[in-house]
Amino acid sequence: MIQRLFDIDSWKVATTKLDKEHKRLQESLTAIGNGYMGMRGNFEEGYSGDSHVGTYLAGVWYPDKTRVGWWKNGYPDYFGKVINATNFIGVDIFVNQHKVDTFVDEIKDFHLELDLQTGILHRHYTWVSGEIEIKFSFKRFVSVAQKELCIVEVAAEVLKGEASIQFNAKLDGNVTNEDSNYDEKFWLEMDRGLGEYSYLTTKTIPNDFEIPQFTVTIMMKNRVSDEKKGHTTDQEMLVQEQFDYQLKAGEKAKLTKLIAVVTSRDIEPNQQVAKAEELLRVAEDAGISKLEREHKIVWGKRWHKADVVIAGDPESQQGIRFNIFQLFSTYYGEDARLNVGPKGFTGEKYGGATYWDTEAYIVPMYLSVTEPEVSQQLLKYRHDQLPGALHNARQQGLKGALYPMVTFTGVECHNEWEITFEEIHRNAAIAYAIYNYTNYTGDEAYLLSDGIDVLTEISRFWADRVHYSKRNEAYMLHGVTGPNEYENNVNNNWYTNTMATWVLRYTLESLKKVSKEKLVDLQITETEKDQWQDIIAKMYYPKNQELGIFVQHDTFLDKDLRAVETLAATERPLNQHWSWDKILRSCFIKQADVLQGLYFLNNEYTIEEKKKNFEFYEPMTVHESSLSACIHAILAAEVGLEDKAVELYARTARLDLDNYNNDTEDGLHITSMSGSWLAIVQGFAGMRTYENQLQFKPFCPKGWDGYEFKISYRGRLLKIIVTKTTASVILVEGEALDLTLCGENVRVTDQVQQAI
Amino acid sequence: MIQRLFDIDSWKVATTKLDKEHKRLQESLTAIGNGYMGMRGNFEEGYSGDSHVGTYLAGVWYPDKTRVGWWKNGYPDYFGKVINATNFIGVDIFVNQHKVDTFVDEIKDFHLELDLQTGILHRHYTWVSGEIEIKFSFKRFVSVAQKELCIVEVAAEVLKGEASIQFNAKLDGNVTNEDSNYDEKFWLEMDRGLGEYSYLTTKTIPNDFEIPQFTVTIMMKNRVSDEKKGHTTDQEMLVQEQFDYQLKAGEKAKLTKLIAVVTSRDIEPNQQVAKAEELLRVAEDAGISKLEREHKIVWGKRWHKADVVIAGDPESQQGIRFNIFQLFSTYYGEDARLNVGPKGFTGEKYGGATYWDTEAYIVPMYLSVTEPEVSQQLLKYRHDQLPGALHNARQQGLKGALYPMVTFTGVECHNEWEITFEEIHRNAAIAYAIYNYTNYTGDEAYLLSDGIDVLTEISRFWADRVHYSKRNEAYMLHGVTGPNEYENNVNNNWYTNTMATWVLRYTLESLKKVSKEKLVDLQITETEKDQWQDIIAKMYYPKNQELGIFVQHDTFLDKDLRAVETLAATERPLNQHWSWDKILRSCFIKQADVLQGLYFLNNEYTIEEKKKNFEFYEPMTVHESSLSACIHAILAAEVGLEDKAVELYARTARLDLDNYNNDTEDGLHITSMSGSWLAIVQGFAGMRTYENQLQFKPFCPKGWDGYEFKISYRGRLLKIIVTKTTASVILVEGEALDLTLCGENVRVTDQVQQAI
Repeated sequence: MIQRLFDIDSWKVATTKLDKEHKRLQESLTAIGNGYMGMRGNFEEGYSGDSHVGTYLAGVWYPDKTRVGWWKNGYPDYFGKVINATNFIGVDIFVNQHKVDTFVDEIKDFHLELDLQTGILHRHYTWVSGEIEIKFSFKRFVSVAQKELCIVEVAAEVLKGEASIQFNAKLDGNVTNEDSNYDEKFWLEMDRGLGEYSYLTTKTIPNDFEIPQFTVTIMMKNRVSDEKKGHTTDQEMLVQEQFDYQLKAGEKAKLTKLIAVVTSRDIEPNQQVAKAEELLRVAEDAGISKLEREHKIVWGKRWHKADVVIAGDPESQQGIRFNIFQLFSTYYGEDARLNVGPKGFTGEKYGGATYWDTEAYIVPMYLSVTEPEVSQQLLKYRHDQLPGALHNARQQGLKGALYPMVTFTGVECHNEWEITFEEIHRNAAIAYAIYNYTNYTGDEAYLLSDGIDVLTEISRFWADRVHYSKRNEAYMLHGVTGPNEYENNVNNNWYTNTMATWVLRYTLESLKKVSKEKLVDLQITETEKDQWQDIIAKMYYPKNQELGIFVQHDTFLDKDLRAVETLAATERPLNQHWSWDKILRSCFIKQADVLQGLYFLNNEYTIEEKKKNFEFYEPMTVHESSLSACIHAILAAEVGLEDKAVELYARTARLDLDNYNNDTEDGLHITSMSGSWLAIVQGFAGMRTYENQLQFKPFCPKGWDGYEFKISYRGRLLKIIVTKTTASVILVEGEALDLTLCGENVRVTDQVQQAI
Repeated sequence: MIQRLFDIDSWKVATTKLDKEHKRLQESLTAIGNGYMGMRGNFEEGYSGDSHVGTYLAGVWYPDKTRVGWWKNGYPDYFGKVINATNFIGVDIFVNQHKVDTFVDEIKDFHLELDLQTGILHRHYTWVSGEIEIKFSFKRFVSVAQKELCIVEVAAEVLKGEASIQFNAKLDGNVTNEDSNYDEKFWLEMDRGLGEYSYLTTKTIPNDFEIPQFTVTIMMKNRVSDEKKGHTTDQEMLVQEQFDYQLKAGEKAKLTKLIAVVTSRDIEPNQQVAKAEELLRVAEDAGISKLEREHKIVWGKRWHKADVVIAGDPESQQGIRFNIFQLFSTYYGEDARLNVGPKGFTGEKYGGATYWDTEAYIVPMYLSVTEPEVSQQLLKYRHDQLPGALHNARQQGLKGALYPMVTFTGVECHNEWEITFEEIHRNAAIAYAIYNYTNYTGDEAYLLSDGIDVLTEISRFWADRVHYSKRNEAYMLHGVTGPNEYENNVNNNWYTNTMATWVLRYTLESLKKVSKEKLVDLQITETEKDQWQDIIAKMYYPKNQELGIFVQHDTFLDKDLRAVETLAATERPLNQHWSWDKILRSCFIKQADVLQGLYFLNNEYTIEEKKKNFEFYEPMTVHESSLSACIHAILAAEVGLEDKAVELYARTARLDLDNYNNDTEDGLHITSMSGSWLAIVQGFAGMRTYENQLQFKPFCPKGWDGYEFKISYRGRLLKIIVTKTTASVILVEGEALDLTLCGENVRVTDQVQQAI
């Protein structure tokens, strides 16, 4: 069942209804961010109804001690938690001493609008009380041109009557985490200052794990339209500045709150106040309108490279733009210490900064829609965290590197053993991203320098993690959890076994190309390479000849095999209706597992193999992960099941806008937002690149009139336009390129078109 | 490596050394209890060094909210926690205003002694300070004749010099739990009173789970040798009465603290003060010496039925008596609402009151060493908790009853999903205990009344929990954890599959004998019985013909199969050295699994089958559960591996006294204490009973001169005496009996002897 709060519009997320019942959902969907910071779509003036106030600063987190009933050797010591930071957007409004609160007050002409083209959030409504009517307007953005800045504007215009109006601009450090089991406060006040530049400096509470405490200074400069002076007050964890007006009908007042946020990730605590003030002075000197112009220019450049146009399906159009907007708001590669968090700046659920989602779902899209440097930052992130990955493997008594399921530092900080210890396939995705980057860009420099460090240590992990089964004369991987988290502690998950040997193969191939000096650094012996070859030669892969499929794991076929359609609607989603053990032993698949392997190693399998596996697994897949449907859509398209591909695409495109999984109130599904883009580009348009050959094999979904998208590819910017009958590739920027379009080899110097 | 604090003695646990490094271990080993209450071997006068002060009241607990990183559907809402109650043994001692503290003070002639025959704890030492020497003596017991009473005596005798001495008798409610992650306090003060009968009434804090709060009143009456009056004082959660003396060399003072403990399990809160006072008045009128005499008489009766004598091995002698003493201190069947807690009154680890240990390891022993009524109380406990078991199955979306892994009420309250949801074999043990009782006593009355209720609902659970694998044309049980907790989420654990169908068989057989009325009550249909028959006929059991073994579970033989002896000593115990995933995928077995089945269904398998399985599994078994070695010992004895049986017995006999598992400081391994008895009686003496025929096939361990034990069997008390060359059965009480001794059918009217 879908739940749609916002109107359909090609570039906006807008509504004229204040939906008090789904306020949290509204807040998630109108979150904004600039890669450095962001916040949910909370109201500046506050809201006394159910709401989730959330402000997040990238890379500012807390290691929360792991608490379990029964400690097991090897558990991560802490769970890395995204923490809610000082709420800096707040501007309380009082009318004749009454605090304006849209939850209880009478209002009309409500309008809320997030402009996806510019990332600016607008809101206005008319407040009514007896004979008085006042129009309040709000505008907010976090600058993508100057990451530390946020601009909030609040305006009042008296439409009827006369009123005393007070604006009270706040920096409020009294915040907690929604997901806290223990009602902890994560911040201590360090300093606060009042004046023209009022500020609050807070520091995360101490921890037992030698994780640095973060110090954050947030400063505001408030300016009102008539240059009136404000009155500042403060208390523990709160500074505020208030401005009083007495307005008659037709009169207006406007507050511009310019906010600077600096953290000890970049600025030493004792320099923060000075730095924040400097940022604000420079910004003021430039002027708000210049700040906004620069901000829009950056967004414009991003869209120029990445926009997707869908003709004839406005819902899909809005969905894909919303997803691209939110992804870029979360991450655009400015800081290699950051990654694509599962909720971005829209919520705090899940914790951690990084999942394998980045390598599996984000890198494939970012390679095409941003410059290679952005994706390379994501690879660099993992290389920088290699020491943590080595630590994780040691914790399990194993050699090499095990990249974490969840982390801020490279050290594992998830807190379920069945994920931490068993969902080790993640390690292959880290390696795969290096391949993906190298294969797409054609640039082996990264692979042969830093990349090979990562590959080698991951290979060492796999080589130590397998065991040799004498009875079967084969290497095996027992006790794993595949991508399908609706099973765990299974043996010989086909995907994991396949990807493990793929890593060994790719590493051995790559090692042939690295410099002698590098080989010495890596300390690889012939014995080690021989062992890897032996594992490649003797790895066991479960398969079934009769069915013509790869088997998800050893005993999967012994299950009670049923199609999802045999489930009653009241049982779905399973994770809300079935006990965990029942889910685990059922045949129902949360997300692409065998099919994930066929997606990654796409060129290694025949269409026939893909089709048989798709037809076997798709009917048992419940897609209760946001990461599932896109992979199925791409494979469905490849094997010619166009309608199925479109049906699966629909689940990814508006997952959050239509709240398909009924949990978007907790925050957006950021890392799965690339799925809709992948489904269009790799699915409908059939984009592949292998052995330096780019190819497209497009079709146009029945309900669409056509679609177009752009990709950056090896120095070119290409625009692909698909209609009902034709597919065109236009060279927007760069040199001529040979590629395959609809099965034909073509050279694009300006534009080529093929019938489809 | 063993760690032995106490001297070898046939009836005592005694030492002349105050081992400050292992104070907690000493406290565990000198714990006393009377089934109603008990406490660790804490010192009355306090101790400022590392120590674990613990006082526990049977059935008084707290439901601690389950806190996990990621909630899964079906999780128990709370973890039932044994809580530390008001410390009532305390008597602070001051000498010239200095608080006596053996951790820092100079002392000599230390003596600590627990008398296993009477359950009385003695202690004395000489306290030295400059020219002053004072002998302090302590005596304590919890009455087995009047469960609410505890008697503490503290005496001082000045040996040299002169001193002011103060006794300060306390009831101290300021207690916390050692195992608390969150530093909660579990008690609120409700009332306190000072006077001749001082008391403290406390109540457990509220909870969210509709579990009644427990109110406990503890009252003391202190009397000193010279009838001196005490001076009472109090503060929040503390009442105390102090007595002052000025003693010269040769002079003595003695305090007798008589304590009554009543709880809302038996007495309404508003009646508790009156009830406690009444108990104390009656006890005082009778006199302390009479109380002690009655207490000793009860212990004497218990030993008369249960004592085991081992000749030529004083260590084993002490071990078996210690184990029997602690078991009887924990449970003697007085209250059907109670069970045999895993730590008894010796610690608070594990939580919960009941594990399947009771049915698997305690019932088999209690059937022989106590009257049938005691074991029947354990069965009644489960019948009373049938509603909770029905609830547990519903939580998993299944029919019938699933008995809990851990509980106080029948409702599951463990907090690891892999145990709660998967270790369902426990359900079979509950059924097996009904069979065991019926088979041993020959009395079908319980089976055909309450027993069949339990069997039917357990059968319904199994019938719903299996699934039919079309490919294999067989019923299977996927996603289980067998008795070997060093694996989990396995498929077709042989033990679980075997016991599940055994339950169905036994239930169907028993149903033939129940009354028509009962059949109506049970609402069993022919369809249901047919389905059970079908499952019995088509259940799948993993086995390997070539090896001649039953296979622990589907893919066990694919593991890297190695003997325990290939492990380095530094890797043991595995659970302290290996990460959890490494343990899970290894072949190493924590405790008897396939062999547990061969033990339970002993008469259904040939000696050859038992031998092959023993020889296959024993080398891979690490026995890191206290419940393991005894089962292996019994089977080793049965298949003729006498030395192996003795070696395995040695691990169970002094597990706590020698702190084999290096964790006895947390409390004793109560539920495994029956293991040493079982190893002697069912192992060395080969006792079996099947189809109304009792049999013995004894041997005498090489290091022993002989051994004797008694069993109660169908109205008789039999004494079995085994020497190097002979086995005798003596009819101590009751009518003549036919039995099999060393393979010969004999009739015991007085005494029979056979050569061995």
